[in-house]
Amino acid sequence: MSNYTPPLRDMQFVIEEWLAAPDDWAGWEAHSALDAELAAQVLVEAAKFAQHELAPLNASGDQQGCRFDNGVVSTPAGFPESYRLFVEGGWPSLCCAEEDGGQGLPQLLNVAMLEMLASANHAWAMYPGIAQGAYECLSESAPAWIRERYLPEIVSGEALPTMCLTEPQAGTDIGLIRTKAEPQPDGSCRLRGNKIFISGGEQDMTDDILHLVLARLPEAPPGPRGLSLFLVPKWLDREGGRERNEVYCTGIEHKMGIRGSATCSLSFEGATGWLLGEPHAGLKAMFVMMNSARLHVGLQGLGHAEKALQLATGYAAERRQMRAASRPQGVAAAAVDPIGYHAPVRHSLLELRACTEGMRALGYWTGHMLDTLHQVGEEEAAGLRRRVALLTPVIKAFFSEQGFRLSSNALQVFGGYGYMQECGIEQTLRDSRIVMIYEGTNEVQANDLLLRKVMADGGEGLRDLLALVRQEAELATADRPRFARQLSAVCDTVEEAVGLLLDSQDSEYPFRAAGNFLRLLALLLMAYAWARSARVAEGRDDDFHRQKRQTAAFFFDYVLPEYRHRADMIRAAQAPLPFV
Amino acid sequence: MSNYTPPLRDMQFVIEEWLAAPDDWAGWEAHSALDAELAAQVLVEAAKFAQHELAPLNASGDQQGCRFDNGVVSTPAGFPESYRLFVEGGWPSLCCAEEDGGQGLPQLLNVAMLEMLASANHAWAMYPGIAQGAYECLSESAPAWIRERYLPEIVSGEALPTMCLTEPQAGTDIGLIRTKAEPQPDGSCRLRGNKIFISGGEQDMTDDILHLVLARLPEAPPGPRGLSLFLVPKWLDREGGRERNEVYCTGIEHKMGIRGSATCSLSFEGATGWLLGEPHAGLKAMFVMMNSARLHVGLQGLGHAEKALQLATGYAAERRQMRAASRPQGVAAAAVDPIGYHAPVRHSLLELRACTEGMRALGYWTGHMLDTLHQVGEEEAAGLRRRVALLTPVIKAFFSEQGFRLSSNALQVFGGYGYMQECGIEQTLRDSRIVMIYEGTNEVQANDLLLRKVMADGGEGLRDLLALVRQEAELATADRPRFARQLSAVCDTVEEAVGLLLDSQDSEYPFRAAGNFLRLLALLLMAYAWARSARVAEGRDDDFHRQKRQTAAFFFDYVLPEYRHRADMIRAAQAPLPFV
Repeated sequence: MSNYTPPLRDMQFVIEEWLAAPDDWAGWEAHSALDAELAAQVLVEAAKFAQHELAPLNASGDQQGCRFDNGVVSTPAGFPESYRLFVEGGWPSLCCAEEDGGQGLPQLLNVAMLEMLASANHAWAMYPGIAQGAYECLSESAPAWIRERYLPEIVSGEALPTMCLTEPQAGTDIGLIRTKAEPQPDGSCRLRGNKIFISGGEQDMTDDILHLVLARLPEAPPGPRGLSLFLVPKWLDREGGRERNEVYCTGIEHKMGIRGSATCSLSFEGATGWLLGEPHAGLKAMFVMMNSARLHVGLQGLGHAEKALQLATGYAAERRQMRAASRPQGVAAAAVDPIGYHAPVRHSLLELRACTEGMRALGYWTGHMLDTLHQVGEEEAAGLRRRVALLTPVIKAFFSEQGFRLSSNALQVFGGYGYMQECGIEQTLRDSRIVMIYEGTNEVQANDLLLRKVMADGGEGLRDLLALVRQEAELATADRPRFARQLSAVCDTVEEAVGLLLDSQDSEYPFRAAGNFLRLLALLLMAYAWARSARVAEGRDDDFHRQKRQTAAFFFDYVLPEYRHRADMIRAAQAPLPFV
Repeated sequence: MSNYTPPLRDMQFVIEEWLAAPDDWAGWEAHSALDAELAAQVLVEAAKFAQHELAPLNASGDQQGCRFDNGVVSTPAGFPESYRLFVEGGWPSLCCAEEDGGQGLPQLLNVAMLEMLASANHAWAMYPGIAQGAYECLSESAPAWIRERYLPEIVSGEALPTMCLTEPQAGTDIGLIRTKAEPQPDGSCRLRGNKIFISGGEQDMTDDILHLVLARLPEAPPGPRGLSLFLVPKWLDREGGRERNEVYCTGIEHKMGIRGSATCSLSFEGATGWLLGEPHAGLKAMFVMMNSARLHVGLQGLGHAEKALQLATGYAAERRQMRAASRPQGVAAAAVDPIGYHAPVRHSLLELRACTEGMRALGYWTGHMLDTLHQVGEEEAAGLRRRVALLTPVIKAFFSEQGFRLSSNALQVFGGYGYMQECGIEQTLRDSRIVMIYEGTNEVQANDLLLRKVMADGGEGLRDLLALVRQEAELATADRPRFARQLSAVCDTVEEAVGLLLDSQDSEYPFRAAGNFLRLLALLLMAYAWARSARVAEGRDDDFHRQKRQTAAFFFDYVLPEYRHRADMIRAAQAPLPFV
C-alpha cells in the first residue's frame, strides 16, 4: 500500500516554469539531447519506483527494523529486492559522467529523485544516499587505479559507499578522531580504530561496501588538519579471488526513527585502505561529499514535508467534526464540516503547502545552479559557487527543521489518530527528527553560514543574493506591490542585521545570533521563491496557477512576518548569555 | 536505574517563597495542621517513589509496551507492583476529603506529585491520572448509594476510573457520540456502543475499573446537549458475589509513545450503568473532571520539560567537543570545552530552565488558587474561579507545546546520541507529543481561551489578570526597571490585541488568531512568573537565588521578545485564509 503520490505537477512547474531549465539544457552541449519531455519521462519513472516499490515498504521497514547477528546485518524484508530494481533501473548512474558509464543527466533530476525517495522511504533512501557524493569525491581525489577499479561499481550501484567520520568521542568535533592509518610497503595503509553511527556500514543489499574513512597518518598534526581520507573496501582483491578486509560491524543502533536504515558501529582491525587525495588533506577531499550530502539531507526535509502535506490534506478532506466558522464559497452550511474548513487546520494545511512548495523551488534551484556552474565561464561559475555555498547550510538546516516541525503540525491535524502507528504520520515525525542532527547539526550549519559564508567576506557574497532578491522585488512592483514592499523590507532587515553583526566588538555575538540569522535568511529565500512563483504563475487562469498565486499570498500574509521576529532576536542576542 | 531527580529545591521555592503557601495554610481551618515542614516531607516521600520506583520502569515500560490477549491487557513488568506501592503509600487519597477516607491535603501538593510522576514515567502516570478528577466528579454528581459504594474504592486506589468520551467518529466533536443508554426498571441503564482511545480501559493494576461514560438516553436531543454521564463498573455486585459487566476491551493501540499506557477500544454490549447527575447534562457533570484533567495534562508538559532539562544539562556538562568562543569566568582556556559552554547549547539549556521553572510557578499557582477558592468568601472565590478558568487552557496548551518543543531542543543537545533509544531523551520526545492532542487539542484550548474565556465577557476576566501583572510591574519599577517596562509593554500589547479582536466584524477572525493569542497570553503569564520570581529572590545571596535572578534576566532578554511576534501574527490573521 502506498500513501504517497509524487508531486510531479509541482516538480514540472519548478523545472519548466520557475527555472525554465529546459531552455538552459538546450544551450549546453552536455545536455543538449535533454528536453522537457525526456526529463518528465525520467521523473515519471522515478516516481513509479518511489510510489510503488519504496513507499509500500516504509511502514513495514520501520516495524521490522534491521537485525544484527554476529557481524551480519539484515535489512527489512523487501529492501534488498527493491535495491536490485533500483540498480536495474539504472538510477545510481543518473548523474554520473558518461565516460564512467553514467547517464550524464543533470543534478536537477537527481535532486527531484532524491526528494521522492525520501518521501517514499527515508530509511531505504539512506543506503544509496551518499553514492553520488562518493562518486564525486573519488572522481576528484582517488588515484587512477582506484577510479578504474571502483568507480564503475559505484556508478552501476553494484557497491555502496559509506562515510566513516564519527567516533564515540568525535562527533561535531572531527578533530578528535583517533583512528590510525599505518602506511605499508605496498602503498596501502592499515587502519585501526572504531567508528560509530555509520549508515549502511554493513548491509545485505550489495556484495561490496566501500568505506570512506577519516583517519590519522603517523605524525599527523592534531586536530582536523591532521586527518586523511582513505578508501577501505569490505572485500580485498586477491589473485584468483578475494579476501574479507579487516573491518567488522560490531553492532547496530536502536533509534527513534529511520529504523530500516542500519546505523552501524565499525571496528577497523588493521583493515587495508588507500589514501585518497593528499596526506592530512582528508577534509578537503571529504568536502566535495559533504556539500552534496548537505543538499541531499535538506531534500529529505523537503521529502518529509511533502509526505506530511499529503497525509494531512487527505485526512482533513475526509474527516468531519464540528460546524466550521466559514466554508468555501458555494458550499452549503452543514451540521458537521470537513476539518479542513476549520481555521487552524486550514492554516496548517496552507503552511504545509507554502513551505513545501517554497522549499522545492529553492532546493531545485540549487541543483540547477550546480549544473549551470559547469557550463558557464569561470567568473559566472565562481559567483554561482559562492551562492550555492551560501544556500547549502540554509537548505540543510531550514529544510530539516521544517520537515520536523511541519510533520508535527500534520500529526496534529489527525488528532488522536495521528499518534497511532497505523496512520503513518508519527513515523514521518520520528524519521524526520534525525535530519536536524546528521551531516553537521543545524547549529553547525548556522555557524557555517554566518561566520564563514557571510561575515568572512564582509557580507560580499550575501550582497549578490540580496541584489537578486531586490531585482525580483522590482519585477513585482507593478502587479504585486505588496510583495515588492515586503521583499525590500526583508532585504533591508537582513542588511541591518549583518551590519550589526559586523560592527560588534563582541566575538561571541555571532554565535549567539547564528540560529536566528539562518532562519532570517531562509525566510528571505522563501519570499524570493514565492515572489518568483507568483510572477511565473501570473496570467495563467487554470486551477494550478491560481492556487500558486493564492499560496504566494498566504506566504506573504502568514509566514513571512516571522522575519521581523528573527531580526528582533538577533538584536536581543546582544545581551550576554550566562553560563549555567 | 533512575535518570530523574525530583527538583525538590525549586518546588520548595515555588511553594514556600513564590506562593508563600504555608502562610495561607496556617490561616485556613482545613489545612491548619499543615506547615512547610510537613509539606516538604510529603514531597520528599513522593519524590522517592517517583525517582526510585517509577523512573526505573520508564524505558523498560516503553520497550515492552502493553500486551493484549483475548480481552485481557497486561501492562509492562513492574507496573502493577509499583501501583500497589503507590496505593500502600496512600497517594491516591492525598487530596480527597477526610470524610471519604482521604488525607485532606491541598491540591498544591497533588500538583507537585503529578509533575514528578509525569517526569518519572508518563505512561505509568496515566493509570491513576484521572482518579482525582473522577473523585471530584462523583462527589458532586453521583447519587448517595454510588458515592458510598464507589468513592472509598477511588480514594483507596483499589479501583481506577476511566473517562470514556471518544468514539471513532467523535473526537473533538463529542456531539457526534452515538453510544446509547437504555433505562431499566431497576433504575439502571443498559449501554451499547464503541469507545476508542480509552486510557487504562483495561489493565492489570486494579481489580475493578470504573468507567465514566458519555452516552445518549432515548429521545435525547442531538449534539452535545443530549449527552448524559454514566458510571459503568467492570464488575457488578450480585448477591453472594459479583458478575462481569458487559463491557469488553477489544484491542489496544500501537502508539508513538506512552507505550506502557494501555490505550483501549471498549465495546459496551448492554453494560449496566447508572446515571450521574441530570439526564442530558453529562457535559456539566464531566466538566469538573475535564478541568482537573487539563491542569493535570499541563503538568505532564512541565514534567517532560523538567526531565529534558535534567538530561540535557547532565550531558552538556560531561560531553566535550570543540573550543568554545567563551567560557565561565575563571575557567582556563582548553583545546576542547564542555559543550555546555558553546552559545547555542547554553541558550538551549537556559531556555529549558527558564521555561520549566516559569511553568512550574504558573502550574503551582493554579493549584494553590484551587485550594484558596474553597477557603475564601464567595466574591473572592468567583474571581479566583474566573482566573483559573482563564489559566487552564493556557496551561494545557502552552505547557504541552513547550514539553514537546523543549524535549526536541534537549535531544538536539545530545547530537546523534539523542536519536538513540538508550539515551532516553527520544522517549521523552515521543511521550510528550500526545499531550498536545488529548484532553482537547491545543487548537480547542486556544478557541476556548479566546472565545469563551476572553471575548465572551468583553475582556472583563482578562482585565483582572492584567491588573495583577501591572501591579507586579509596579513592584519591579525601582529595582528592576527593565522588567517593569517590558511587563507593561506586554500588558499594553495584550490589550491592543483584545481590542482588535473585539472590534472586528469578521466572525472568523478570532479563530484565525486564537493560537497566537494563547501563546501571547502564555508569554505574559511567564513574564509575570519570572518578575515575581526575581522579586522574591531579591537580596538573597546564595547560588540558588542568584541563579533565579540570572534566569529571570535571560527570560526577559531572550524568551519574552516572542510576544511582539505573536501580536504581529494576530494582526496578520486579519488577512483572509483561503480554502485549499
